[in-house]
Amino acid sequence: MQNGNVLKDKSVKEKPLIFVTNDDGIHAPGIRLLIDRMRALGRVVVVAPDKPQSGTAHAITIHTPLRLKFHAGEPDYEEYSCNGTPADCVKLGFKVVMKRHPDLLVSGINHGSNSSVSIIYSGTMAAVFEGAMAGVPSIGFSFNNYSPDAALDSCGAVVSDIVEKVLEDGMPEGVCLNVNIPDVPLKELKGIRICRQAGGTWQEDFDERVDPIGRKYYWLKGIFVKTGNGEDTDEWAMENHYVAVVPVHFDFTSYEAISLLKYWEKDA
Amino acid sequence: MQNGNVLKDKSVKEKPLIFVTNDDGIHAPGIRLLIDRMRALGRVVVVAPDKPQSGTAHAITIHTPLRLKFHAGEPDYEEYSCNGTPADCVKLGFKVVMKRHPDLLVSGINHGSNSSVSIIYSGTMAAVFEGAMAGVPSIGFSFNNYSPDAALDSCGAVVSDIVEKVLEDGMPEGVCLNVNIPDVPLKELKGIRICRQAGGTWQEDFDERVDPIGRKYYWLKGIFVKTGNGEDTDEWAMENHYVAVVPVHFDFTSYEAISLLKYWEKDA
Repeated sequence: MQNGNVLKDKSVKEKPLIFVTNDDGIHAPGIRLLIDRMRALGRVVVVAPDKPQSGTAHAITIHTPLRLKFHAGEPDYEEYSCNGTPADCVKLGFKVVMKRHPDLLVSGINHGSNSSVSIIYSGTMAAVFEGAMAGVPSIGFSFNNYSPDAALDSCGAVVSDIVEKVLEDGMPEGVCLNVNIPDVPLKELKGIRICRQAGGTWQEDFDERVDPIGRKYYWLKGIFVKTGNGEDTDEWAMENHYVAVVPVHFDFTSYEAISLLKYWEKDA
Repeated sequence: MQNGNVLKDKSVKEKPLIFVTNDDGIHAPGIRLLIDRMRALGRVVVVAPDKPQSGTAHAITIHTPLRLKFHAGEPDYEEYSCNGTPADCVKLGFKVVMKRHPDLLVSGINHGSNSSVSIIYSGTMAAVFEGAMAGVPSIGFSFNNYSPDAALDSCGAVVSDIVEKVLEDGMPEGVCLNVNIPDVPLKELKGIRICRQAGGTWQEDFDERVDPIGRKYYWLKGIFVKTGNGEDTDEWAMENHYVAVVPVHFDFTSYEAISLLKYWEKDA
């Protein structure tokens, strides 16, 4: 549990330095709740997008310059917004704002689930991968309700519970957490399950329209369809009112397929 | 090897339907070479971004409408550009242009490597994941030279070789290929290796500048640093003049970590 060493070192008297970001933008209710909870646990630096960035996945900004806007500075607290993606926010936050790595990165609370294959489109989880690739224990939180006005009552306690666990125990090397919280009142939450990513796919449809000068355009829309739902999956956990914690990593190799395809190798 | 069944069914007389896209945009030399090679092997539909989309990763466009522009139609060939990301191109291509799934998806040839963790930022590979999630055998090709003017001489033969192999043998279910081609003349290529994704990280730096009205802005730049280089990795293969083929999947679960974290589970 290498990454947890700094945090577990009891000789370090300082409160942990926690970096906070998201993909719904700095004004989203989800990040405001996350910030409140983190300020109770440590020193906090926030760099979050200045506007919603849902669906940006792991995009980075290389064709336009990035800007930081200072929002607030108080003892043990600094807040900035950035005109880039969640991944940009992490890179700028670590390199320009903090000039060091934090002890923990948290991203969210996303308004909408990032379970199953939705992780691949998720800006929330891109920020988490970015932290993990830098060797920082990193956690993404998502709430299974897309409405920005949804009551987040159940999320606060879950977030604090899981963050305290990570600050105490650290995280396996090269691993980060995708935490999805079901949309039920706190008293109906049944507990926490460590899960695998459920099989699933987004079945796209396009809304075809015609603009005022007669040209077609298309709005992307889609429906998530599960293709598997074992009791060990994040989808099953959420449907059964458990918080789903999926440990994920950024080695995308299919090791099983390496042996299946080995016969392709050839020398010129 | 479920996905290959349609292609392996010898009773199907039709030439395979091959979908082509990329992230460098429809005019990039890499995709033009890829199109030429695919037209020799089957019917081809191209939907590619109308401008460079490097670094877009798996972003999808949900805040602005998408448009398709028709470029060319010939027997067994259709070409369109789209104002969206590579993932958008695949979704629009399958649902709106072809109204079916192709027998094969190829993406690239990217101007620049997508080996190691670069896969996570890659629009080229996002298109490939998008195909694989739809159950289509899908391959991304990248050339280890970022210059759009680089000689692609060695790529053509490699692309045809690997595509013919996939059309013949199919692909393991849920797996797609990340193919990286070293920047050496064809006669110096030593062969093909089936690899795992090498450990590595992008160490960011930011170029801080001041605009004419005195506000700071930042250009993202970074250096790739390997953190491991076993003889079974894509980085090793390329350095040793082999084509690196990494089978990748879109289940990001760290199964090892599930057992390590199981003790976190609790019931309310």
